Amino acid sequence: MKRTAFFLSDGTGITAEALGNSLLAQFETITFERVTVPYVDDREKARELVNRINRAAEQDGQRPLVFDTIVDSTVRDEIALAEAFMIDIFGTFLKPLEEELSSSSSYSVGKSHSISNESNYEQRIHAVNFALDNDDGARTRYYDEADIIMVGASRSGKTPTCLYLALQYGVKAANYPITEDDMDDQDLPHCLKPHRHKLFGLTIDPERLATIRNERRPNSRYASVRQCAFEIEEIEAMYRRQRIHYLDTTAYSVEEIATRIMVMTGIERNR
Amino acid sequence: MKRTAFFLSDGTGITAEALGNSLLAQFETITFERVTVPYVDDREKARELVNRINRAAEQDGQRPLVFDTIVDSTVRDEIALAEAFMIDIFGTFLKPLEEELSSSSSYSVGKSHSISNESNYEQRIHAVNFALDNDDGARTRYYDEADIIMVGASRSGKTPTCLYLALQYGVKAANYPITEDDMDDQDLPHCLKPHRHKLFGLTIDPERLATIRNERRPNSRYASVRQCAFEIEEIEAMYRRQRIHYLDTTAYSVEEIATRIMVMTGIERNR
Repeated sequence: MKRTAFFLSDGTGITAEALGNSLLAQFETITFERVTVPYVDDREKARELVNRINRAAEQDGQRPLVFDTIVDSTVRDEIALAEAFMIDIFGTFLKPLEEELSSSSSYSVGKSHSISNESNYEQRIHAVNFALDNDDGARTRYYDEADIIMVGASRSGKTPTCLYLALQYGVKAANYPITEDDMDDQDLPHCLKPHRHKLFGLTIDPERLATIRNERRPNSRYASVRQCAFEIEEIEAMYRRQRIHYLDTTAYSVEEIATRIMVMTGIERNR
Repeated sequence: MKRTAFFLSDGTGITAEALGNSLLAQFETITFERVTVPYVDDREKARELVNRINRAAEQDGQRPLVFDTIVDSTVRDEIALAEAFMIDIFGTFLKPLEEELSSSSSYSVGKSHSISNESNYEQRIHAVNFALDNDDGARTRYYDEADIIMVGASRSGKTPTCLYLALQYGVKAANYPITEDDMDDQDLPHCLKPHRHKLFGLTIDPERLATIRNERRPNSRYASVRQCAFEIEEIEAMYRRQRIHYLDTTAYSVEEIATRIMVMTGIERNR
């Protein structure tokens, strides 16, 4: 049985999608066809959408689910005419919030993912550039500016994590790959020593690491389970010896890795 | 007057934060102190949190707002004991959804940002790697694999947009900077010709571009308003001549640019 779920917004749709997906994830036995429609910001677009929702209802033989974060109540009123089951965020929560805050809402649209605070937004874009410029040990002389320096084996998840920390939280994250050269002596790589308090380690199951590396360089020594196991063992020993906080990324998405690091380190978000 | 707002989750907290921020954005006259607490996944953590919320209530002289996306109702029941105004997503919407779907929810935690669908997750990480490897015209021989090729002046927002498209939607986005060399003849750069249907242009207000470039290379010819105006004029003329769809990024956040491109191009999300 298929149900269609619409995620509607007058902004980017990112919030409606996140919310809808987290609710739908609770119903594993049902197959959902997901449709995101952002920028539904006038009544004409809303009326077109009502037709689309009604067509889906007819095709499915079931009314669609509609998750909406549309602020403008005149647009919402149009959507409400559709043959659908509505999960209406602003309709549900805005009035009680107004009462609690003894304040009228401004009914302004698409605020949460727009550039509402210019300097915070710029910090996020700066942080993205910082992550790119200081990726993979490319430069080490700007580590003074970093909020965090991610270390770990090649392909353990450092780069996507740094980019996510930058985009989502405006955190300046550099990363440095620990290679065999760094394992010869028992010490921290020289360029990391002055920044020990900013280091955060990633580790990963060696078999999983081998799978990931095989996509890059199939059947290489670099991608062998044996080599991965050796590197991970050495690197985890270094983390323990140097008392570097670390996280096993094997079962985690980049969102989970990033948010767990935020909790473990207590870094402030810049947004 | 300050109010404290807590964003609570048993997962990453990303959904609770997005939802809470979009509601709070409607109350511009009130200053909110925002606290995100992810991974509240057992009753003991919930009880500690109740103390923290109650302390905030005492300090503010007002009860805090609590936005929560905690799935486990026994954990939510603990949180409900706090001196707070609750916006409880699962408590509000799960029961009506269960009735609509004639199905019990699985009450599983933190699904929406975990690796619930491994192959989709891998597509997102592949897309991030693709964006990095094909950034800034670094390589052009993999454009066959790209879902979209972003073009535009240096610093018009191509790279953050490509990364966001990859992380959020699993879209493989390459980018190619249009430079003065490409403006000499009236034609498309040679390497882009076979991929005309995948091209998407960014443009930006020349003064804004000059500001951004000045942060990189202060007082250079590259960062002069005159040079920026020249490039933007030439590039927009190229877009029109070659019938390339394009977007002015001046007033938009990376989230807005990315979601608008998704709408304008109709690219499918891989997640």
